[in-house]
Amino acid sequence: MELLKETILERGQIYPNNLLKVDSFINHQIDPMLMAEIGKEFKQYFGDREVTKVLTIEASGIAPAMTTAFEFQVPMVFAKKTLPSTLMKDKVYSADVFSFTKNVTSKVVVAETLLNKGDKVLIVDDFLANGEAVLGLKKLIEDAGGEVVGVGILIEKSFQPGRQKLEDNGLDVYSLARIKSIADGKVTFK
Amino acid sequence: MELLKETILERGQIYPNNLLKVDSFINHQIDPMLMAEIGKEFKQYFGDREVTKVLTIEASGIAPAMTTAFEFQVPMVFAKKTLPSTLMKDKVYSADVFSFTKNVTSKVVVAETLLNKGDKVLIVDDFLANGEAVLGLKKLIEDAGGEVVGVGILIEKSFQPGRQKLEDNGLDVYSLARIKSIADGKVTFK
Repeated sequence: MELLKETILERGQIYPNNLLKVDSFINHQIDPMLMAEIGKEFKQYFGDREVTKVLTIEASGIAPAMTTAFEFQVPMVFAKKTLPSTLMKDKVYSADVFSFTKNVTSKVVVAETLLNKGDKVLIVDDFLANGEAVLGLKKLIEDAGGEVVGVGILIEKSFQPGRQKLEDNGLDVYSLARIKSIADGKVTFK
Repeated sequence: MELLKETILERGQIYPNNLLKVDSFINHQIDPMLMAEIGKEFKQYFGDREVTKVLTIEASGIAPAMTTAFEFQVPMVFAKKTLPSTLMKDKVYSADVFSFTKNVTSKVVVAETLLNKGDKVLIVDDFLANGEAVLGLKKLIEDAGGEVVGVGILIEKSFQPGRQKLEDNGLDVYSLARIKSIADGKVTFK
């Protein structure tokens, strides 16, 4: 998606250790016009499939997952990273997600009432690096008796093993911007 | 806003201690069509004011803040509740927010680059109870040299002191659904 690639080049920031930061349009400040276009792009790619729900993880996934769900005219669910007090009384599906960046394992949960047998779920997330988050969401969906119909990613770090792992798990991954390398403060797309 | 009130009556759940749960369309699962209408409603109410940015708090505020920002064609910023690792190197505006529900004080932060002198900010949040969250956001905006042009709330618990506190601070509060009471499992609007 050219618009996203251009925005990354114009507004992304490269931090020490070649860390790409997109806080000015995806992760902290959000560009709602870009998000609307992203929703349309995912609808165009996945539009031939039956989708009953869009699933993401709080917080950065919420915006693009919502515009995508709007295009499909279906509900969006965001998995929570902790157990807030209001969820404690509910039964939840849960999965452990290991973060290589932070070197910690955290739990993602979805209330059992919100994922159902027969659900055909499109997963949307902002970054794909090692694929652990998406595999965690896949587990939640399958624990509920649903199935993953596709995975929509905004920014794929193609130099990391996430895509391969997801494909090995039978998932169809569509990434709007695939980054081949980040070096010397410069992003190169595939 | 009739659509929101009807949705609360149809899909809201009353838990013990008269706790209203809206996890099936606002707080965990999100109804993107409802959110689009909410954005239009806030645009209609606040549309005569200059708005340069919409500000909310993660995670439940993101969806309605984004549709509102889309209507105004301005960026949306969400304050973060903790300091994620990628923010650590940045300077932030911060405010303490006391939660009466959880009886804890937490910190909300926004990177200094994302709030600026002269910004005219519309605050959007899902619930208004004691007003502490909105007052925290107001502090961030004013620390940056900006001003609050209005406060858009989805669900106001009018039996709690939030609105009064915000009005005492000179804020114009527009709530889409004002709840007068929750008793015996029943919601009554003002």
